[in-house]
Amino acid sequence: MSTYKFGQHIIHSSQVFFLSKQCFGFVNLKPVAAGHVLLAPIRLVQRYSDLNSDEVCDLFLSAQKIGKVIEREYQGTSLTFAIQDGPEAGQTVPHCHLHIIPRKAGDWMNNDDIYTEIDKASKVDNEERTPRSFEEMEKEAKYLRQFFNNDNVKN
Amino acid sequence: MSTYKFGQHIIHSSQVFFLSKQCFGFVNLKPVAAGHVLLAPIRLVQRYSDLNSDEVCDLFLSAQKIGKVIEREYQGTSLTFAIQDGPEAGQTVPHCHLHIIPRKAGDWMNNDDIYTEIDKASKVDNEERTPRSFEEMEKEAKYLRQFFNNDNVKN
Repeated sequence: MSTYKFGQHIIHSSQVFFLSKQCFGFVNLKPVAAGHVLLAPIRLVQRYSDLNSDEVCDLFLSAQKIGKVIEREYQGTSLTFAIQDGPEAGQTVPHCHLHIIPRKAGDWMNNDDIYTEIDKASKVDNEERTPRSFEEMEKEAKYLRQFFNNDNVKN
Repeated sequence: MSTYKFGQHIIHSSQVFFLSKQCFGFVNLKPVAAGHVLLAPIRLVQRYSDLNSDEVCDLFLSAQKIGKVIEREYQGTSLTFAIQDGPEAGQTVPHCHLHIIPRKAGDWMNNDDIYTEIDKASKVDNEERTPRSFEEMEKEAKYLRQFFNNDNVKN
């Protein structure tokens, strides 16, 4: 089983559902909503400005593909895309990553509350939120994987 | 003076500080923080999935350039990048746009509150927030313009 670095964390390929030349998409240990996934460059860099041009284009073209799928599969009608670029923006894992979250009417009392939840979720060592089981995460990644051409993702 | 469409709104070039082949960056009528700027494709499309590949790359390569400048010029140490992609994600102007916001320690009591403010700010008809004067916006756009190669931006 291959693995991917996500800051100080190791992401097993069983949690990875999307792979492009420069990026990997993976399911979330503590999602704020069903379908809340993360997309990161394979190369470990902290800041958005550290990405080279190929990585920038790959990341955001990949985000289009992933967004379409998760919006549809999780019955969303909108999407939230967010990068917390640096600690003062709420980044807790020092590896640049994009949050992609399907949204729907009434998903939160207040549309804005989701951002509070993102910050909590991105702290994988945060005790406030119960982490999901690896079995649940693997099941979700396997489900999502079918919608992408991921010849290189090992199962 | 040329103008740019931003959904139903007209943005005068005097408020535009950045221009690429596909995108324009402009100052905010109701910023949530000093240096909170917006970047949009010149072509009016509502959803992120509506952007073509050239627009996606241009938008996010431009975002790198703008982010570096506003972080430095507004004494930030981090950046928030966010797209509210659809009404259920808080999008109020139906023209795909990226929020770029310089962040610093203690800029809000809670890092997350900025998202509440973004939603308010993106409602340009929102009465809760006092709009800035056009003179103030023009002054800021002129200041920022010096940091970019904007041969095509009319002053």
